[in-house]
Amino acid sequence: METFPSRHLERAVAEIAKLPGIGRKTALRLSLHLLRRDVSEVRMLSEAIVQLREDICYCKVCHNVSDTDLCDICANPRRDASTVCVVENVSGVLSIEATGQYRGLYHVLGGLISPMDGIGPMELQIESLAQRVQSGEVREVIFALSPTMEGDTTCFYIQRKLKETGVLLTTLARGVSVGDDLEYTDEATLGRALAARVALSE
Amino acid sequence: METFPSRHLERAVAEIAKLPGIGRKTALRLSLHLLRRDVSEVRMLSEAIVQLREDICYCKVCHNVSDTDLCDICANPRRDASTVCVVENVSGVLSIEATGQYRGLYHVLGGLISPMDGIGPMELQIESLAQRVQSGEVREVIFALSPTMEGDTTCFYIQRKLKETGVLLTTLARGVSVGDDLEYTDEATLGRALAARVALSE
Repeated sequence: METFPSRHLERAVAEIAKLPGIGRKTALRLSLHLLRRDVSEVRMLSEAIVQLREDICYCKVCHNVSDTDLCDICANPRRDASTVCVVENVSGVLSIEATGQYRGLYHVLGGLISPMDGIGPMELQIESLAQRVQSGEVREVIFALSPTMEGDTTCFYIQRKLKETGVLLTTLARGVSVGDDLEYTDEATLGRALAARVALSE
Repeated sequence: METFPSRHLERAVAEIAKLPGIGRKTALRLSLHLLRRDVSEVRMLSEAIVQLREDICYCKVCHNVSDTDLCDICANPRRDASTVCVVENVSGVLSIEATGQYRGLYHVLGGLISPMDGIGPMELQIESLAQRVQSGEVREVIFALSPTMEGDTTCFYIQRKLKETGVLLTTLARGVSVGDDLEYTDEATLGRALAARVALSE
């Protein structure tokens, strides 16, 4: 490991390199970039980071990040409260909202079950989802989790927990991506797309 | 552009996305990571960034980042003060030091001449290099700049400025990288390596 000519630089690189996907080379590049910026700009970045962590609220219903007790989506009377889409985190909400095709509400788990990372069902907003469903207003729960081992495990766990409520449980369709070349589609995806083939309407 | 469910998140993503090489998707991923960390950890990152910018010093001789007026390398009496290696920034110093083969001093320009980015010779530590050379102790100036248009321009500019001092001006050898496959070496590099071929010692 290099020895840096300044402990301030050393410390900044060490802290930045703790971020996921950022190694020491990138951390040094970012540090040198910050050194060339105005103090006011660097302060803005620094304050934005701390305020994000200290002042963030979570919606008491769907647990999405929010500036208010009840998020804008949950508070919107024009959204369909009988449908709840289960997502891993706020990225999932943003992705589904970006389609412009969903009018229901969300439930943000805050992660996926992952024994390797020490994340069990108790660390996630699963109990609150069960309570929401048991309250009676929900008719369909849509799982919009990543098609990974963790996503499938989480989906399966929640599915078993909600089965007795009799609520309709659905998941996103798996299939060939729009615009994808069949030649480069993996077998698992192609296999599922074949099994779930749909009739062409005439 | 997505609308974020919280202005704290919006602001953090906007500030982080100003960093070079980090887009909004990565900025959101980093923001979500910070949300899951302890407040104390986030504060450490935030403080490290501000202190880096506010408390950094630069060596008054070589202009490398330093915690003192004179950096450890310039202050070391065992380094050869007659040789000065010109680098773009602190990364250059770290790279050359990592070879373990250099015992001279450095001169950190703080950038490269780049009219496209509005960086002229006056923005860089070129005048102070000329003064250092004119002071008489320096016998060789080694250019260790990137083999790019900006690096070559900067090297050429300084070369003309120092020519009349009569000091020996050298640059890093250009050639085939150690471990590189000839098949993948670009023509410009291969051409220069051929022109600068060296006799095999028997």
